[in-house]
Amino acid sequence: MRYCVIMCGGVGSRFWPFSRTDKPKQFLDFFGSGRSLLQLTVDRILPITDMSHIFLVTNSAYYDLVRQQLPDIPERNILLEPARRNTAPCICWAAHHILALDPDASIVTLPSDHLVLRETEFHNVIRKGFEFVEAGDRLLTIGLKPTSPHTGYGYIQLGQNVNDDILKVKSFTEKPDLEMAKVFLSTGEFFWNSGMFIWRADSILKAFDRFAPETATLFNAPPGIYGSDRERDFIDAEFPNAPSISIDYAIMEKADNVFVETADLGWSDLGSWNALYDVSPKNPDRNVTQNCNVLSHNCSGSIFASAPDKIIVVSGLEDYIVADSGNALLIYPLKDEQKIRNVVNEVSTRFGEKYI
Amino acid sequence: MRYCVIMCGGVGSRFWPFSRTDKPKQFLDFFGSGRSLLQLTVDRILPITDMSHIFLVTNSAYYDLVRQQLPDIPERNILLEPARRNTAPCICWAAHHILALDPDASIVTLPSDHLVLRETEFHNVIRKGFEFVEAGDRLLTIGLKPTSPHTGYGYIQLGQNVNDDILKVKSFTEKPDLEMAKVFLSTGEFFWNSGMFIWRADSILKAFDRFAPETATLFNAPPGIYGSDRERDFIDAEFPNAPSISIDYAIMEKADNVFVETADLGWSDLGSWNALYDVSPKNPDRNVTQNCNVLSHNCSGSIFASAPDKIIVVSGLEDYIVADSGNALLIYPLKDEQKIRNVVNEVSTRFGEKYI
Repeated sequence: MRYCVIMCGGVGSRFWPFSRTDKPKQFLDFFGSGRSLLQLTVDRILPITDMSHIFLVTNSAYYDLVRQQLPDIPERNILLEPARRNTAPCICWAAHHILALDPDASIVTLPSDHLVLRETEFHNVIRKGFEFVEAGDRLLTIGLKPTSPHTGYGYIQLGQNVNDDILKVKSFTEKPDLEMAKVFLSTGEFFWNSGMFIWRADSILKAFDRFAPETATLFNAPPGIYGSDRERDFIDAEFPNAPSISIDYAIMEKADNVFVETADLGWSDLGSWNALYDVSPKNPDRNVTQNCNVLSHNCSGSIFASAPDKIIVVSGLEDYIVADSGNALLIYPLKDEQKIRNVVNEVSTRFGEKYI
Repeated sequence: MRYCVIMCGGVGSRFWPFSRTDKPKQFLDFFGSGRSLLQLTVDRILPITDMSHIFLVTNSAYYDLVRQQLPDIPERNILLEPARRNTAPCICWAAHHILALDPDASIVTLPSDHLVLRETEFHNVIRKGFEFVEAGDRLLTIGLKPTSPHTGYGYIQLGQNVNDDILKVKSFTEKPDLEMAKVFLSTGEFFWNSGMFIWRADSILKAFDRFAPETATLFNAPPGIYGSDRERDFIDAEFPNAPSISIDYAIMEKADNVFVETADLGWSDLGSWNALYDVSPKNPDRNVTQNCNVLSHNCSGSIFASAPDKIIVVSGLEDYIVADSGNALLIYPLKDEQKIRNVVNEVSTRFGEKYI
């Protein structure tokens, strides 16, 4: 059977003050649609796997938020990480858990905080991907047609074609500099690494055994643990000992059965205010209004975000972020947004954790 | 006996979004001192007149706010205007009311929303003023030594000396242009009109009879009305018929027994964000932080205001107002602050009265 694992334990400061330690980005209703990014992710995969086949891996701290936002997900499908250990341990555990339920399981693993505008294409891509990995011992990642020389993404170099959309992976490159990214784009050979993966549960676990033995050993529980009442205790004891490592670094960059399915999904990782600005509708002054009322004069290229019942009156800002949420207000040039992480740290140090 | 009348019925939009229609400037704790401007005004006059001799004239809409902020003011000392009619009707009514209680009353009339930094000097000035008006039929206004060619204030031209500080008034000039204001300053003959007045109750009423007969007639109640249970009904019926006119225009500019007491009180009418900026302590970047936490980079000459428990993180603003209060956020160049009134009207029209 086909399963979906949604990773929703991440915490990020790039959308501060909207994202907070106690309510990270995936739990926010980013577009004022009434649905959080996590809820939209579940909505998006439902035509492929029904609710009982969707598993959420999150940090214990976010259990209440997950329950509240996704009341229809069965309780047993929520896997609570006792510690933050990046994606590899999370994926390894989920594969063990699902394999214990279904030895023939195949799994699509999804981030919970990305944007996908072309849903039908998404469904086609995921279905085709499942078919591909179910036919053999293959690890598949979804590669997205790049639309700009983005320096914040990982790039996948395409190798030999298997069919029209699926190719062997030649190499992975993390966040290139701008010049390199431009070269990547010009060759047509490089696609963005989406962080969406498809494989059989037994395939990925085999890869862990071979390429990440330290993690694999940790999660190789005695028979009968996974899926039993004792799984939780086992995980609480072992998970914190896992190395903090990404699935790309632990497996994808090392294994030789790695393939990429190319796709054009209207995708953004929404990893920054600039990314949000790029994908949002703009008024004639190129301003983006995010879910609030704005009266602006002599402003351009800016993004304004606040609560839906708040008004922002603003004059004379060019290329700014104005983000007002709860006990914090950010007014910052869009071009300097990479500094926000440091600013948030400074806020925490000088004014206290209640602000972050 | 000596009485104080504090006028606290005004509504202003210049400190929007801090001042709101339902909570104008005089009710705000402007300096984070824990006391509103109105409370500070009462605190300031208490060494001169005790609580039972302080009368508050305000609009009916603000009764609850006044009660809440000044629980020690006797209920009978709150005079509720049934309509907004500028200062002359307000002052005429208060004089009648107090004269009925005390035929020998002298009154200092004060705005409720100004700043006075030199309190001891204020007390000296008011005491000396009382002595002056109690010795004869004289109308006295407090004139403040100007510190800049401000174009938003009224100016009083000094005439002949009565004593060191008190002089005959030669003329009044409302809001001169900048060139004129500079001339005024250079002559040393012109002082700012503070809106603080001292007179005997019978003196000001005599002046009303002579120079503002329309208003005077309206408030000339049959004997026994003022101070009785029937006063409220009388006022509710007559007050709305009064012309809306300032005391300066109705009386001070016309009467010939008008004197000015010159003073240097560390005064500001706090009539604008610029005025507030001018009187507030500044950090090395010339920024003013109003009662909130601010983390600023590359900002100068700006004023930042929010709730005490909120943080503002801001970068790259020069000479800006950032004012965040309740359901509204204002980000506006200080130099354009005279446009705020229009902006507030536009907010009201386009987004609704709940924002103003």
